[in-house]
Amino acid sequence: MTATQSLTELHSQVQHFYAHQMHHLDARRFEEYAATFTEDGVFQHSPGAEPAVGRPGIVEELVNFHKKFDGDPVTRRHWFNQIALDPQDDGTVKSTVYALVVTVRPGGKPEINPSCTVHDTLVVNGGEVQLKSRLITHDQVF
Amino acid sequence: MTATQSLTELHSQVQHFYAHQMHHLDARRFEEYAATFTEDGVFQHSPGAEPAVGRPGIVEELVNFHKKFDGDPVTRRHWFNQIALDPQDDGTVKSTVYALVVTVRPGGKPEINPSCTVHDTLVVNGGEVQLKSRLITHDQVF
Amino acid sequence: MTATQSLTELHSQVQHFYAHQMHHLDARRFEEYAATFTEDGVFQHSPGAEPAVGRPGIVEELVNFHKKFDGDPVTRRHWFNQIALDPQDDGTVKSTVYALVVTVRPGGKPEINPSCTVHDTLVVNGGEVQLKSRLITHDQVF
Repeated sequence: MTATQSLTELHSQVQHFYAHQMHHLDARRFEEYAATFTEDGVFQHSPGAEPAVGRPGIVEELVNFHKKFDGDPVTRRHWFNQIALDPQDDGTVKSTVYALVVTVRPGGKPEINPSCTVHDTLVVNGGEVQLKSRLITHDQVF
Repeated sequence: MTATQSLTELHSQVQHFYAHQMHHLDARRFEEYAATFTEDGVFQHSPGAEPAVGRPGIVEELVNFHKKFDGDPVTRRHWFNQIALDPQDDGTVKSTVYALVVTVRPGGKPEINPSCTVHDTLVVNGGEVQLKSRLITHDQVF
Repeated sequence: MTATQSLTELHSQVQHFYAHQMHHLDARRFEEYAATFTEDGVFQHSPGAEPAVGRPGIVEELVNFHKKFDGDPVTRRHWFNQIALDPQDDGTVKSTVYALVVTVRPGGKPEINPSCTVHDTLVVNGGEVQLKSRLITHDQVF
């Protein structure tokens, strides 16, 4: 985060970053999703999982995760809300976000599950936001 | 979209535009909803429907659609999320948005259905956003 | 709201204010939640309730309200959306917001209930937003 950029602008920018990122994920554009991380980015989709490190590793993790939907005509929509930013002394920005996953199948009703909290560390350079790390915790699991 | 306006500012502005627009819709202020479109705006609330063209046509479409709620003490709330903007070469801005409709009746629990994607083309002049066209696709229908 | 601040900036700033505020509430940091109100702030969480006035009164109200969750391993997440701002002649800003409460228990699925509308009056000085009053109406109750 540069000194000249206000937290207000940053909040808007991060929201927009997340919007594009989640459109990529839900359309299963995993390369594009992975490209939102830094080269050495870390992605841990649940506290018990082994973290994926680096873009190729993140793509692999997502491909493996989505195998369970093979032959399943499901649409998933990731909703983010209440994005709270906390700039850190090292120039990174902590971002804590509520997330819900909306799951829909043909002819069905949306199921909204799980409820998660996303713990991101962002690197921001001018107009560009990148994810240094993402850890997701789940409200259903204590 | 003018050259001097950043995408960051635009994202915030479009969010606010949608907030007021959905408050109008859910309060059934159809004239105000239609006024958020350009004079020749196009509104197609599902891929199979005939598009409504122009503000009077949009009002008529909404009046007809809401007849099914006559005598039904229902409250509807349109939730928008993950607003992804893509400026086009012709100066318009494509906006792709997740939407959920929350439906509540007295003494009941909120039902959240359907899950949709909103495909908007926006015209932005300085501080003013207008809808040139809106097409809504539904996740339940393939 | 100062003359030099645009509504666009303000919208982003208010979103961020709400994000931090709801993280405080859901983590039961009631002192921090109350500190988002002005000294003489008024908080009425439903139209029939007696309003709590002032920060100590707001803390007390929240402590009392949450006693019903004693021994209940529940996580609550307040989701805000469609934040519509209307600056007033007296310099305050009216903010009308949709809200859903997501409730989760270990091993369970998220329950989304109730659906509310938040009616806020905000005082904004430069970078600082404070709540002068908050009244919450519920869609289930007419």
